[in-house]
Amino acid sequence: MNKIKAAIIGASGYTGIELIRILLNHKYVEIKALVANSNAGSNIDSLYSHLNHVNLPVLCKIEDLDFSKLDVIFGCLPHTKSQEFFSKILKENKNPNLKLIDLSADFRLDDPKNYEKWYKYEHIAVEIQSKAVYGLTEINREKIKNAELVACPGCYPTSALLPLIPLLNESLISAKNIIIDSHSGTSGAGRALKETSLFCEVNNSVKAYGIGSHRHISEIEQELTKAANQNLEIEFTPHLLPINRGIISTIYVDLNENVTVEKLEKCLKEKYKNDHFVKICDHEISISDVISTNNCFISVNKARSAGKAIIISVIDNLCKGASGQAVQNMNLLFKMAESEGLIFNPIYP
Amino acid sequence: MNKIKAAIIGASGYTGIELIRILLNHKYVEIKALVANSNAGSNIDSLYSHLNHVNLPVLCKIEDLDFSKLDVIFGCLPHTKSQEFFSKILKENKNPNLKLIDLSADFRLDDPKNYEKWYKYEHIAVEIQSKAVYGLTEINREKIKNAELVACPGCYPTSALLPLIPLLNESLISAKNIIIDSHSGTSGAGRALKETSLFCEVNNSVKAYGIGSHRHISEIEQELTKAANQNLEIEFTPHLLPINRGIISTIYVDLNENVTVEKLEKCLKEKYKNDHFVKICDHEISISDVISTNNCFISVNKARSAGKAIIISVIDNLCKGASGQAVQNMNLLFKMAESEGLIFNPIYP
Amino acid sequence: MNKIKAAIIGASGYTGIELIRILLNHKYVEIKALVANSNAGSNIDSLYSHLNHVNLPVLCKIEDLDFSKLDVIFGCLPHTKSQEFFSKILKENKNPNLKLIDLSADFRLDDPKNYEKWYKYEHIAVEIQSKAVYGLTEINREKIKNAELVACPGCYPTSALLPLIPLLNESLISAKNIIIDSHSGTSGAGRALKETSLFCEVNNSVKAYGIGSHRHISEIEQELTKAANQNLEIEFTPHLLPINRGIISTIYVDLNENVTVEKLEKCLKEKYKNDHFVKICDHEISISDVISTNNCFISVNKARSAGKAIIISVIDNLCKGASGQAVQNMNLLFKMAESEGLIFNPIYP
Amino acid sequence: MNKIKAAIIGASGYTGIELIRILLNHKYVEIKALVANSNAGSNIDSLYSHLNHVNLPVLCKIEDLDFSKLDVIFGCLPHTKSQEFFSKILKENKNPNLKLIDLSADFRLDDPKNYEKWYKYEHIAVEIQSKAVYGLTEINREKIKNAELVACPGCYPTSALLPLIPLLNESLISAKNIIIDSHSGTSGAGRALKETSLFCEVNNSVKAYGIGSHRHISEIEQELTKAANQNLEIEFTPHLLPINRGIISTIYVDLNENVTVEKLEKCLKEKYKNDHFVKICDHEISISDVISTNNCFISVNKARSAGKAIIISVIDNLCKGASGQAVQNMNLLFKMAESEGLIFNPIYP
Repeated sequence: MNKIKAAIIGASGYTGIELIRILLNHKYVEIKALVANSNAGSNIDSLYSHLNHVNLPVLCKIEDLDFSKLDVIFGCLPHTKSQEFFSKILKENKNPNLKLIDLSADFRLDDPKNYEKWYKYEHIAVEIQSKAVYGLTEINREKIKNAELVACPGCYPTSALLPLIPLLNESLISAKNIIIDSHSGTSGAGRALKETSLFCEVNNSVKAYGIGSHRHISEIEQELTKAANQNLEIEFTPHLLPINRGIISTIYVDLNENVTVEKLEKCLKEKYKNDHFVKICDHEISISDVISTNNCFISVNKARSAGKAIIISVIDNLCKGASGQAVQNMNLLFKMAESEGLIFNPIYP
Repeated sequence: MNKIKAAIIGASGYTGIELIRILLNHKYVEIKALVANSNAGSNIDSLYSHLNHVNLPVLCKIEDLDFSKLDVIFGCLPHTKSQEFFSKILKENKNPNLKLIDLSADFRLDDPKNYEKWYKYEHIAVEIQSKAVYGLTEINREKIKNAELVACPGCYPTSALLPLIPLLNESLISAKNIIIDSHSGTSGAGRALKETSLFCEVNNSVKAYGIGSHRHISEIEQELTKAANQNLEIEFTPHLLPINRGIISTIYVDLNENVTVEKLEKCLKEKYKNDHFVKICDHEISISDVISTNNCFISVNKARSAGKAIIISVIDNLCKGASGQAVQNMNLLFKMAESEGLIFNPIYP
Repeated sequence: MNKIKAAIIGASGYTGIELIRILLNHKYVEIKALVANSNAGSNIDSLYSHLNHVNLPVLCKIEDLDFSKLDVIFGCLPHTKSQEFFSKILKENKNPNLKLIDLSADFRLDDPKNYEKWYKYEHIAVEIQSKAVYGLTEINREKIKNAELVACPGCYPTSALLPLIPLLNESLISAKNIIIDSHSGTSGAGRALKETSLFCEVNNSVKAYGIGSHRHISEIEQELTKAANQNLEIEFTPHLLPINRGIISTIYVDLNENVTVEKLEKCLKEKYKNDHFVKICDHEISISDVISTNNCFISVNKARSAGKAIIISVIDNLCKGASGQAVQNMNLLFKMAESEGLIFNPIYP
Repeated sequence: MNKIKAAIIGASGYTGIELIRILLNHKYVEIKALVANSNAGSNIDSLYSHLNHVNLPVLCKIEDLDFSKLDVIFGCLPHTKSQEFFSKILKENKNPNLKLIDLSADFRLDDPKNYEKWYKYEHIAVEIQSKAVYGLTEINREKIKNAELVACPGCYPTSALLPLIPLLNESLISAKNIIIDSHSGTSGAGRALKETSLFCEVNNSVKAYGIGSHRHISEIEQELTKAANQNLEIEFTPHLLPINRGIISTIYVDLNENVTVEKLEKCLKEKYKNDHFVKICDHEISISDVISTNNCFISVNKARSAGKAIIISVIDNLCKGASGQAVQNMNLLFKMAESEGLIFNPIYP
C-alpha cells in the first residue's frame, strides 16, 4: 500500500505535536509537511526537544505546500484562522482527492448564524462549512467515510456526546435538565502565552470558567438536539485542572419514565459493543485510565434520586478529544482499519 | 485574659496539624496537650519535620489528660473512634466548664438511626449526640455559643451549605433538583496509608468516587431539609484532585418562579454582609483564592437556561472545612472575636 | 509607635504580592502605596483575586509617589529597571530618612564592571551602588542597620551562602571545589509570560538551565570570596521544579585537614544559635518544611568520602529568598525585632 | 517466528505494569503468565483499571508456572525476595533454554560480601549470582547476548553510568571527585504503602534522602571501578521529586589534563553513534524529553571552572531505568533487533 501523504498546518501547537506522535506510529502514513509559519525554516525539535533525533520535515510556510503531492491535510489552527486557510486551499487546490480534516471549531456548527452568535465572527467560508461532516467518529461513521472535510469535535463535546447521544436516540433520558460538569487538563488551552496558563497560576488550584456561556455549549446542543429530535438547552461548566492532559465529565440526567440505570448502561454497551475505543466500565474510572490513548471510558451510576443517573466519562483531550479522533477519521476516509496507528497501551502511572 | 487551655486528640493527623498551625497563631490559646496514642512519648516534629524548633508539648496518651486543667478539647479522631472517646470523657470529666469540639462525623447527624444507616455502625453515645450542635458557624452562631459539644461540619458540606441554606430559607430556589458537584484536594483523605492516596495514583488524574452514595449526602440533606422546611434529596458527587488542599463545589439550582440570579446574589450578600469569612465575589473564583485561609468565596452565575443558576463555592478543606471552623466555633464558645487567630493572608502563589 | 509607611514598586509581581502578604501581618507597617505602572488605577484584586475584600491602596504610577510621606520603599522591579527607578528617586527625593530596599539584582555586585560582565548592561547608577549593603541578614546584620539602600540577595544565593559563609570564615572547608546543585520552584521566574513557565511545560518535568553560567554565580562567588578571604570559583547548577515555591540546595564541600562533619555542624549551630530563622536540623529536610515561612533549614551530612560533606539547605524562595528577607532587613533598619511580622506557622501539607 | 513466551513475576508493581505496556507493543512476545501471589485469581484490571478491556492472563501464583512452556521470566520482585524466587526456579526448572531477567538489586553486585554490606542481608543464591551479567545494555551488549541471567541495573545507576563509563574508559576524566546529584519521580518507590509516598507528602516538595549512603552507590562504584580500572568512591545524592516518572542526574566531573569539554562530548557521540536509545544533545534537556520512552538524553556542558564539566542525563526510570532496559536485554538474548517493541514516540506534554 502506498503511504498516505499528510501535512499538518499549525504543527507547532499541542494538537500538532500529538498528531506527530500518532502519525509516527501509523504504518501507512508519511508526514510530508509540517506548517508553522512563524517558525518556518526551523526544525521542530528546536521547539519541542523531545523530538530530538526524530526524523521529520523542516517546518515550512503554507505557501510552500504542494497540494498535488498530498492526500490529507490536518488543520490545527485556531478558529477564524482555520477558515481563512481552508478558503485559500479550496481556491488553489486542484487535487480532487485531497481530504481535509480540521481540528478547529470553524466547521463544527451547521448554521453560520449560530457560529457568528457564539464566536462573534462572521463566517467567511460558508460554502465549505456546508460540506463539513461533524467528526464524532462512533456516531457519524458512515457520513465521515465520504466527507471532503471532516470537522473534528471539541474535546469537551467528545466526552459528553459519546454517552449522551445513544441515550437520547433511544429516548431513555429526558432532553431537559442535562447537566454536564467537566474538568480539563491545561493542554486544552494550547501553548499560547496566557497568564492563566502559567504554572504557578494553575498548580494547586481548580477554576470554573465560561460558566453558562462556554462556546462548546453550541456544539453539544446542536448534536444533542439532533439525537433527541427536539430543541434542548444544556448546562455545561468547564473547569481548569492542574494536570497536562485529560478530561472528566460528570453528567447528571433525568431518566424517562420506567427507565432504569441498568437500562442506560445496557443501551451504551450495546451501542458501543463493536467499538475499539469506547468502553462502558463497571469500576470507578479516572482520567489516568485513558491518558495517552484514544479511549473513552464511561460509567453509568445510580444517583441519590431514583429518577436520575450520573454518568462519568473520561478521555485524553489531546488524543480522543483532538488528534487521535482526527486520525481515526482519517482512517475512515482512506478505508483503513479504524484503529490503525491508534493502539496505545496506556502509560501508567 | 487567661489563656484558654486546649488539648487536641488525634494530633498527628492533618486536621490536628492544621489546628496546631492556627492555635499557634491565636493570642488567647495555649496548646496544653497533644494526644496521639500510637506515638505517645515522641515529639510531634518526629512526625512533621516542619515543626522542628516549634515549642509544643510532647505527644501523650488519652489517659494522660487531666480534664480539670483543660478548657477545650478538639477531637480529630476518625468516626466511631470519636464517639468512643467522647463517651469516655463524659464519664470521667468533672470539669463543668470543659468545652468539646469534635471534627469527626460522629455527632453531626441528629438521628442515630440515620447515622447507623449511613455509617453502618450503631451509635454508642446517643446521649451526647443529643446535646451536639451542628457547627456551621455562620448559620448556627447563636446555638453554638452555648453548646457543650460542637459537631463541626464535614468539608464538602461546609462548601455546599453556606451558599444553599440562605437561598432555601428565603424560598428563592427549588428544594428539588439541587446538584452539587465537588472536587477536593487529597488531604481530605488524611494521612492514612491507602493505595488511593499514593502520589503516583493521584497525580495527573481526577476520579469521581462515592457516586450517589457518599456519606456527606446525609449531612447536607439534613441541614438543607431544615432550611427548606421540607424533605429533600440532593445529588452530590465528590471527586479527588491532585492538589493538597482545597474544595471547589459547582452547584446547579432551579430558581423558583419570578426569581432571578441577581436576587440570589443579593440574598447571599445580605446574609453574609457582616461575616468576616464568607465573601460573595464577582470574579471567577479559584481554589487558590482561599488556600491557607478560613475564607469561603462564593460566586452566583447565570446558567445557560433561564430557570437555573450555577453557584461556585471554594474553601480550604483543612481550614474552613475543618480546623479553621473548629477554632471559629471555639471563639464563639469563649466569647471572643469570631476571627481571633484566624486572620491569615492567603499564600499566593 | 507610629506605623512605618511603606511603598512597593512593582507590586503586581510575585515578590510584590508576597511583600503584601507579609506586611499585612506586620503590626507596625502601613502599606501606603502600590506601584504598578501598567495597571495604575486598578485594584490589586483585579490581578490577584485572592486579595478580594482585603483593604489595600489602588495601584498607582511611580510619579504618583510622594516621597515625603514614605519611610521605606521596596523595589520589586526587574534588574536594569530597578537602577533606573532608584536613580530617579535619588534625584527627586528630599526625605533624608527614606530607606530603600531593593529586591532586584541591580545593587548586589560591588564592582560595576562585574555587573556589566554578568548582566551585559552598563550600570547607570554606580553612585548608588556604592552605598548599597548586601542584605543577607544573618551575615551582614550590623551593616544593614545603618544602610540607606539594602540590596537583598537572590533566592539561590541566600540558600547557598547561609551555610557556606560561616564554614569558610572558620576555614573548615576548602575554597576550592564547592559545588552547589540547586532546584527552585517556578515562582522564581515571576509572573512574566514565558513559554518555559507554562503549566504544561513545567509540570511532570525538571530541567537544568544556565549550566555553568547562571548570573547568581557572580553574587555567590563575591560573598564567598569575602568569607574565604581568597578568590574562588564555584560550580552552581540551577534547575526548574514543578512546584510553586521553594528551593533546595545540595552542596558538596571538601573538608580542610583534620576537620570532621561534626565540626561543620557545630560551627553552624554556634553561628546561628540565636537566630530565629536559620535552623540546623538532624532530620532529612524537605522543601515543604519551610514553605510560607522565612526559615532556612540546613542539614550537614556525611558524604561517601571521608574528606567531603554534603550540606542541604531549604528556603521558601519568595519569603526568605526575597520578600521575607526584605522585611527582615526593614525590621533592622527601623530598630524593630528582627522577626516582627515574620512569624508564620508553616502550612502543612 | 514463534512468539517468545514470557512470564512476569511481581506483575502487580509499577515495573510489572510497565513491562506489560512494553510487551503488549512487542510483535514477537506473548505474555503467558502474570504472577502476583497475593492477588492470584484476580484479573490485573482489578488492580489497574487502565487495563480494563486489555486481554491478559489472570494473575496466578508462582507454583502455577510451568517452566517448560516459558522462554523468559522477568523478575519484578523486591530484593531478597528475588533471590529466594530465582533459587527456587533453578532447582525446579528443567528447561535449558529458559532465560532469566531480573529487575531487582539481588544479582547486580559481583561480590556477595559487598551485597551483604550494602543490603544487610546474606546472599542466599551465590551460585546464581556468579552467572549474572550486569544488564547495562549499551555497555555490556556482548556479554548479555549469552547470559542465562541478566541483572538489570538500577534506575539511578543507568542514568549515571551511561555517560560516565565511556569517559573513564578513555581516561578523559578523573576517577576522583565524581559527584552525581540525582532527582527521581516517585514511581521509583513503587506502589508500596509508605507515608513518604503519599500524595500530600510528596507534592509541592523535594527531599534529599539516603545522603552519602544510598545502596545504588555500590552498584555505580562497582561499574565505574571497572571502567576506570582503579578503585574509586563517588558522591551520590538521590532526591524525591513530585512527578510520577523520570530521573535527572546532574554530574560534576574533573577533566584530566589537556582534556576539553568538547572532547568529552565527542567521546560520547562516538561511543553511542550507532545506538538507538542514547542521544548526546546540544539543547537544554529535561525529564519530559524522555518520558514514556527508552531513551537516555545526555548533554555535556562547560562548567564555571576550566578543569570541570557538568553532564546532564535524563531517563524514564520505569522504562530505560527498569522495564524498557529489561526488554532491550531480552531482545539481545533472543537475537532480535535491540529496539523491537521499544519504539515509543514520547508523550508531550
